[in-house]
Amino acid sequence: MNAIGIVARPDLADAAGLLRQLAEWLRSRGIEVWLEEKTAALADGALPSGCRRASGLEVGAAVDALVVLGGDGTLLRASRLLKKPAPVLGVNFGALGFLTEITLPELYRTLTGLLEGTYRSEDRRLLRAVLRRGAEERAAAEVLNDVVVAKAALARIIEVDVSVDGVFVSSFRADGLIVSSPTGSTAYNLAAGGPIVHPALSAMVLTPISPHMLTHRPLVIGDAAEVEVRLRRAREGDVHVSFDGQGGVPMLGDDRVTVTRSERILRLVKAPGRDYFEVLRTKLKWGER
Amino acid sequence: MNAIGIVARPDLADAAGLLRQLAEWLRSRGIEVWLEEKTAALADGALPSGCRRASGLEVGAAVDALVVLGGDGTLLRASRLLKKPAPVLGVNFGALGFLTEITLPELYRTLTGLLEGTYRSEDRRLLRAVLRRGAEERAAAEVLNDVVVAKAALARIIEVDVSVDGVFVSSFRADGLIVSSPTGSTAYNLAAGGPIVHPALSAMVLTPISPHMLTHRPLVIGDAAEVEVRLRRAREGDVHVSFDGQGGVPMLGDDRVTVTRSERILRLVKAPGRDYFEVLRTKLKWGER
Amino acid sequence: MNAIGIVARPDLADAAGLLRQLAEWLRSRGIEVWLEEKTAALADGALPSGCRRASGLEVGAAVDALVVLGGDGTLLRASRLLKKPAPVLGVNFGALGFLTEITLPELYRTLTGLLEGTYRSEDRRLLRAVLRRGAEERAAAEVLNDVVVAKAALARIIEVDVSVDGVFVSSFRADGLIVSSPTGSTAYNLAAGGPIVHPALSAMVLTPISPHMLTHRPLVIGDAAEVEVRLRRAREGDVHVSFDGQGGVPMLGDDRVTVTRSERILRLVKAPGRDYFEVLRTKLKWGER
Amino acid sequence: MNAIGIVARPDLADAAGLLRQLAEWLRSRGIEVWLEEKTAALADGALPSGCRRASGLEVGAAVDALVVLGGDGTLLRASRLLKKPAPVLGVNFGALGFLTEITLPELYRTLTGLLEGTYRSEDRRLLRAVLRRGAEERAAAEVLNDVVVAKAALARIIEVDVSVDGVFVSSFRADGLIVSSPTGSTAYNLAAGGPIVHPALSAMVLTPISPHMLTHRPLVIGDAAEVEVRLRRAREGDVHVSFDGQGGVPMLGDDRVTVTRSERILRLVKAPGRDYFEVLRTKLKWGER
Repeated sequence: MNAIGIVARPDLADAAGLLRQLAEWLRSRGIEVWLEEKTAALADGALPSGCRRASGLEVGAAVDALVVLGGDGTLLRASRLLKKPAPVLGVNFGALGFLTEITLPELYRTLTGLLEGTYRSEDRRLLRAVLRRGAEERAAAEVLNDVVVAKAALARIIEVDVSVDGVFVSSFRADGLIVSSPTGSTAYNLAAGGPIVHPALSAMVLTPISPHMLTHRPLVIGDAAEVEVRLRRAREGDVHVSFDGQGGVPMLGDDRVTVTRSERILRLVKAPGRDYFEVLRTKLKWGER
Repeated sequence: MNAIGIVARPDLADAAGLLRQLAEWLRSRGIEVWLEEKTAALADGALPSGCRRASGLEVGAAVDALVVLGGDGTLLRASRLLKKPAPVLGVNFGALGFLTEITLPELYRTLTGLLEGTYRSEDRRLLRAVLRRGAEERAAAEVLNDVVVAKAALARIIEVDVSVDGVFVSSFRADGLIVSSPTGSTAYNLAAGGPIVHPALSAMVLTPISPHMLTHRPLVIGDAAEVEVRLRRAREGDVHVSFDGQGGVPMLGDDRVTVTRSERILRLVKAPGRDYFEVLRTKLKWGER
Repeated sequence: MNAIGIVARPDLADAAGLLRQLAEWLRSRGIEVWLEEKTAALADGALPSGCRRASGLEVGAAVDALVVLGGDGTLLRASRLLKKPAPVLGVNFGALGFLTEITLPELYRTLTGLLEGTYRSEDRRLLRAVLRRGAEERAAAEVLNDVVVAKAALARIIEVDVSVDGVFVSSFRADGLIVSSPTGSTAYNLAAGGPIVHPALSAMVLTPISPHMLTHRPLVIGDAAEVEVRLRRAREGDVHVSFDGQGGVPMLGDDRVTVTRSERILRLVKAPGRDYFEVLRTKLKWGER
Repeated sequence: MNAIGIVARPDLADAAGLLRQLAEWLRSRGIEVWLEEKTAALADGALPSGCRRASGLEVGAAVDALVVLGGDGTLLRASRLLKKPAPVLGVNFGALGFLTEITLPELYRTLTGLLEGTYRSEDRRLLRAVLRRGAEERAAAEVLNDVVVAKAALARIIEVDVSVDGVFVSSFRADGLIVSSPTGSTAYNLAAGGPIVHPALSAMVLTPISPHMLTHRPLVIGDAAEVEVRLRRAREGDVHVSFDGQGGVPMLGDDRVTVTRSERILRLVKAPGRDYFEVLRTKLKWGER
């Protein structure tokens, strides 16, 4: 563990003190510290000597681990910068996140474990999505949470045919369809009525959004499969596909999205003594024993 | 019962024979027959003498009752043409509709009841929706089914504050919010997880679409109330309001939609011997006793 | 307002001081104070002079209003004692209740309003349920929340036919069926997936519990109707009907339960400034604006 | 493939002809045919020579494959008789079953594939459940569908603590809790709101039945885990555990059920050309492309 990157949510208030303190803590232990430009800007020039400022991609290429300060959205974005499965330590500000589960008081204890190699982590597998028109690949993405094919506001409904490994599953008439990883199962999938899927399970969830067919239900399948979502009909502007909630690429009739297991994983550092179910209980307010 | 209008789905195939037969049946009983232009066009000029062709609005103003040939969408559109609560007889082609419940074999028997004044009907109350920005009324509509405030495809979520008669209900972070009449309760509301509400109940249903707060549930209130849905934040193009699934008017931050009971009703003619629950059972495939 | 009754949850700890204080407060304003025997026992004989101890039914017959100390269960039980629609003031200990919404700090302010006649209240209509075998009336009850027909643990499923005002609705194969009032809509009905129904709406909710038919949905109807639930088949010990969660009366094949609007109402005293939706938001943890 | 057993639903009407025909078909191909006593009784003594009649357990021990005539319940029962993972061919009478997917017209074609070794099959893994009080093992079962801990009719609710591999998941206050295999996911689990889980996925589903906590959701975990369900409180007669919907063993306070992956599998013979999703579509009436 030679180099550690720091990425913070760009609008994080009063972060200068923490950033300096964190950088000093790492530097004093002989660690090379890389900060994303915007994160460094938050520190108001008060960083210890020897800290490197660089673009997100440079940071991602240089470091052996990443500390993210912010919420799940920041971690989602920052984890994309990494070129290898380096450990990511997500520190939440405000509310506990599903991904940013480490609190400020736990930060240095967790970092110590990281440097000493005694930390625990959870590997979260990404999904790979490709949008094709005929033979042309129009868009591709690696997602941690989900691939969503959904109607535009003015469209009434989408109609898609779904198949798994080339075997037809069903047609869906709905507001949309979510293909979610276990990690994404607690995000949009949960709001749409899908189940919680433990992140250690090699699975994907297919969850229709407000399906017209009342007997359509979320479907959990193994992630070694290839899911294909094909539009039955769509006029310009009616349907979009989005990756981890980002942007949205228009789809036209006969366009199809395939989703498979990605080669990439996110290695999420756990706080000492905290387990997956504790995060669930806190986030979903299940109460304690 | 002097004048009866006929409105058919514009793409209804092989309708010429039926239209001519229906018009003759009515003419032979001394009824003035009005056809919407597009409906008349379906008849291929083979209409009996004395039939009137006119715009939809003229038909709506002239007639004492309306026969609709098509599906629920056609009936929804045609019923807007009426200026008074005239009986509407919906004949379904293909599948039974929630509104177009009369089958072709039942048509003349039901019409006979209509002419003789012995028919049964269900009154379906409409809702009135008004979209305002400050004091300015930007759009208004009378809806039979629902008013839907929803995100555009590229937006991640909407945030609205809902109040009832000026009393704050809750903030909702969701894909959207449906304010549905009892009639609309079996449309989009059902897909979004809302309950079935009997059309004789003076009620509205507020159903969030994929709410992030898992404890948000559909809420049924009396229709004497005024529901207000106010945007908390929205950028251009993020949120739309639609009326009975039609079009969609963009909403901006601080815009608000109010929904109240309309003065208008739709008087739906029932087939002899068919009741509301039979339609439900058939449409939702509940099976028989 | 001459006489006020006090009923406390029998296991309420450390209630002696509060009971004496409350009784003195009322006595000093010239109010006759009636305590249920078990409640008086909680006061350890330290009650002010002139307080009456009596059975619950005597208390219910004598008083013009009732103060209930405990939770929703205590209020449900205490409200049964009343012979007329006297106001009931529910004070919660521990967590806010849907019915016991008044906190200790609000108690005397609310009582003052009650004595001065300036209080606000919500009328909650009860339902009346009758269980019949042939012409024989085997059980009858007035319920505030719900009538539940459910399987015994060892039964796999129940099969019932439901009709409304003599019109067949559907057969249900399920774990059970809940007929709920608006007040009961936030109790068992909510757990079973039913909607929230505003207490001012004259309605009932029919909610199947884990129905095998996936298209069965909660159904909201007007409370002027008579709901009949008839067993299709049942062996001894398979099916029970319960009233407000109390006890459970066995049902056999061909037994039927009818549910109608009761003549009785519960007049629930509101805390000054608290409305129905605030209670909902707090109980369901919807968060604040 | 030397010996094939036949087990029919005991009340199967007009089965004599089919049983004789089936037995002759198998005998003429040199197969030893074993019939369960009750099945043989259905054949009215008209069986070809050389057929063996025996108890279910003897049949299960002797055969290399099993033909089941009936529905899913019959197959569930019959599959318990097998001592090894022999192929089971389920022929449905009346409606298609999730397990008995083969129709009569497909029977001999499928059998031919079975004899020639060219058939396709799906392996369905069973779950193993053990009920313990302290160190004492009070009941144990291998289930194909589910283990259900549920309240008795007169109980209001159960309270259980669930842990996975010794890690606390949550307390549940509910009507009950289902631990389901992928095969069972389309049975009771589906009625209780759980997801469909593909049978090839090595998973279990934990689905609370009508949970009071509205944020409780079905949870899918890997089947290498040990699930423990422990009662928090229960009085005599309040809670039962049942295995594949059979019987029901009373549970008392501190009793606990553990569920793990069983060593046993059910090898289900597929009809030529029929896949898992086709069965789903038909059973859940999803309609065709």
